[in-house]
Amino acid sequence: MRSIFFTILLAVVFPGIQPVSAQDPLPSWNDGPAKKAIISFVHATTIKGSADFVPVAERIATFDQDGTLWAEHPMYTQITYCFERVAALVEQKPELKAVEPFMTVLSGDREAISKLPYSEIEKIIAATLTGMSTDDFISAVKQWLETEKDPRWKRHYTELVYKPMGELMSYLRLNGYKTYIVTGGGQDFVRVYSEKVYGIPPEQVVGSMAATTYSYDQNGKPILIKEPKVLLDNDKAGKPEGIYLMIGRRPYAAFGNSPGDQQMLEYTKAGDGTRLAMLVLHDDSAREYAYGPAQGLPDTKVGTFPQALYDLATAHGWTVISMKKDWKVVFPFEK
Amino acid sequence: MRSIFFTILLAVVFPGIQPVSAQDPLPSWNDGPAKKAIISFVHATTIKGSADFVPVAERIATFDQDGTLWAEHPMYTQITYCFERVAALVEQKPELKAVEPFMTVLSGDREAISKLPYSEIEKIIAATLTGMSTDDFISAVKQWLETEKDPRWKRHYTELVYKPMGELMSYLRLNGYKTYIVTGGGQDFVRVYSEKVYGIPPEQVVGSMAATTYSYDQNGKPILIKEPKVLLDNDKAGKPEGIYLMIGRRPYAAFGNSPGDQQMLEYTKAGDGTRLAMLVLHDDSAREYAYGPAQGLPDTKVGTFPQALYDLATAHGWTVISMKKDWKVVFPFEK
Repeated sequence: MRSIFFTILLAVVFPGIQPVSAQDPLPSWNDGPAKKAIISFVHATTIKGSADFVPVAERIATFDQDGTLWAEHPMYTQITYCFERVAALVEQKPELKAVEPFMTVLSGDREAISKLPYSEIEKIIAATLTGMSTDDFISAVKQWLETEKDPRWKRHYTELVYKPMGELMSYLRLNGYKTYIVTGGGQDFVRVYSEKVYGIPPEQVVGSMAATTYSYDQNGKPILIKEPKVLLDNDKAGKPEGIYLMIGRRPYAAFGNSPGDQQMLEYTKAGDGTRLAMLVLHDDSAREYAYGPAQGLPDTKVGTFPQALYDLATAHGWTVISMKKDWKVVFPFEK
Repeated sequence: MRSIFFTILLAVVFPGIQPVSAQDPLPSWNDGPAKKAIISFVHATTIKGSADFVPVAERIATFDQDGTLWAEHPMYTQITYCFERVAALVEQKPELKAVEPFMTVLSGDREAISKLPYSEIEKIIAATLTGMSTDDFISAVKQWLETEKDPRWKRHYTELVYKPMGELMSYLRLNGYKTYIVTGGGQDFVRVYSEKVYGIPPEQVVGSMAATTYSYDQNGKPILIKEPKVLLDNDKAGKPEGIYLMIGRRPYAAFGNSPGDQQMLEYTKAGDGTRLAMLVLHDDSAREYAYGPAQGLPDTKVGTFPQALYDLATAHGWTVISMKKDWKVVFPFEK
């Protein structure tokens, strides 16, 4: 106990100094190029006297969420929330029962639902994520997350997080890095659980942003109403734009898994000194899922990893994490 | 030295426990209702066992900048920057020399300049704050701040900060509060100096937000270009909206000085438990400026404090800070 106490104390009081630890900081990672790249990066940027030493205030690491920190198949969790929320929505607004696309969603006809065009899905997203107070929205998401489970693992969605990525975030934080989520998902959706699930406080979640309107409820209490007006689509080029808006500093490390993360990784690597850029490749259908189509993996519509992205990673020195080869464990509940 | 070390250590490792300090944490404040309100609030929300104890993660305090943390008269510093930047702008774009309102600004005719309508001033703001890369913008602001001085005090603008407010921010931070600037000014303008001047890192500055566009320079290096497209006008109702967007938590304490801060203070006070809302009244023409028109002070066009706001403060239990009565010192360079 004593040595753990002093380790934490030293890290808190003198974050530039790392005591040599006999313990492996990444026990769920197999030895290999990915684990080596992480440890080399942390040493290069945090050990005093290193040519690429980074002051604590500038140590920023950004993580995509879907497919990078937790499972995104068969469908992004937030989209599942929107579809499952339709039943509660029509209770409040019964007139929607006879209106498309709500009629199709309520029918439960999976084939018809899977054929809905994106313009119709957008209507479901807007209807279930906007038009209520921020407090009501947060309560609804919290309740859904506590109740609903993923059909394959029979686990809450917040349990489907990747243990090796959790260790990576802890390792970075112990070394003075401020960890941020930078997701294409809704910023205030992810904030509902980010602290509990990832140890990341709401103010360190950057996501797609929509407007709110300041107003007063019937008792004159100030409230914020969620509006169907996008301020920033935090995907692709939107990720560096969102980082500039929300953080105002260029990250030293960035992690993703799909073309939506390309610009964030480019922007990160364009900075001076040692920078780390990594992409998770889902090549493990036994423990999670396998999809690409890079490296001959099956194609997908959700969270693709095209061969062009794989080639870009090779050309730019971004490290590809193979879920199958690099991770000893995928989920915390395994074994 | 030893006792200071242990005080800091305790505050860092056990932020919920405050060692009893013999030192006055607010030496530039006179004893009075304002100082008392601050200390009562900190005790109520941070001493373990208090009915209104607030967990460290939720301790958020938000500060307006212009007129609350630094001088805003005779003109907001960022507007002064925009006007003084016109000369550099026409060097890059000589065609603007013959175009209004740039012609008037270049003429140096103070009376003509003061008569420019706001629609013309907006053209100056857009031309000097957008259309360049974020890196070029940051360099230009940094250089201007290092060079230019306020005509009355012959001091750099970043020296015109209020010492008592600096002590207040330090006192809150020592007690586990995360301090944020929430300004109607440009978010990325204030971020250039916030860390150095206020000890507030860029990611804790919430301001008026404009879009950027991710792009590549002639060498293929990723850059962000500042666009003349407002995402959020962080003033009045925009302040709670900006707080929700950037922080995602309701503040426990909020500080302002004009009607632009009213909604932020309302929103803060609408939360549970003990909350602190304060407004700085500029009633000291000898040491700084005096303007209202509340309490019979002279009227102004910059950073007004109308009687209606004063009455609202009285009705809602917001504390008005009298610069003249409550502050022993205004600027750090005094004496």
